[in-house]
Amino acid sequence: MHDHEAEFANEAFYLAFAQKDLAAMERLWASNCGVVCLHPGWPALIDRNAIIESWKSILTNPNQPPIDFYGVTSARVADGIVAVVCYEVIAGNTMVATNVFVAEDDGPKIAVHQSGVCANPPKITAAGDMTIN
Amino acid sequence: MHDHEAEFANEAFYLAFAQKDLAAMERLWASNCGVVCLHPGWPALIDRNAIIESWKSILTNPNQPPIDFYGVTSARVADGIVAVVCYEVIAGNTMVATNVFVAEDDGPKIAVHQSGVCANPPKITAAGDMTIN
Repeated sequence: MHDHEAEFANEAFYLAFAQKDLAAMERLWASNCGVVCLHPGWPALIDRNAIIESWKSILTNPNQPPIDFYGVTSARVADGIVAVVCYEVIAGNTMVATNVFVAEDDGPKIAVHQSGVCANPPKITAAGDMTIN
Repeated sequence: MHDHEAEFANEAFYLAFAQKDLAAMERLWASNCGVVCLHPGWPALIDRNAIIESWKSILTNPNQPPIDFYGVTSARVADGIVAVVCYEVIAGNTMVATNVFVAEDDGPKIAVHQSGVCANPPKITAAGDMTIN
């Protein structure tokens, strides 16, 4: 798995989130290894069924605000394991998230997702670069 | 690497943090792969030198409050890769953290650390069990 494949899968994750596509979200989670999901403010979830249920409650919530993301970077942790980091914008609040992807037979899958408040997120310049205050 | 080896390394991480032992902290970070560190409220750090500098600024800060942790669980992401999740208590605030360990020749090393505010952390009962509100 190349870093850019993990970054494409990261885009697919946020597309599934933005489009409230639970089936796509479920397909994106790893099936063959341990998984971790830490939503902002939630206790840790480490059971795949509990994680999918949590996404069901989020994606079917009519009051769930839209999500956008920017500032994608990635770090190769091992062969077939890439950690993607990006900033999430939800209802004017910026979060920072880590999404760790593992290579499975049908593509990169999420093994670890953690999203939490970022008090001082980088800004995007007119040229599309990020600056940190 | 067994899960319990990663959990011991997780203990060593919080001991280095609590004892403000920068040398031990530096030894705990992976040297042979990409690394990610997301301190609460900070922008993402994905450069090992920048990560060690960030720990230097935290561990040498005379106003840095003590840290404790509880509720350790782990998920095996792949052979040699274990994600450890736990709750951190700093100055009365509870964070939830993911620490992803990779097996290196001299033991488990941290490749990914993210810590962020946990609004509704599990409580410890008198029997040592955790309950979620």
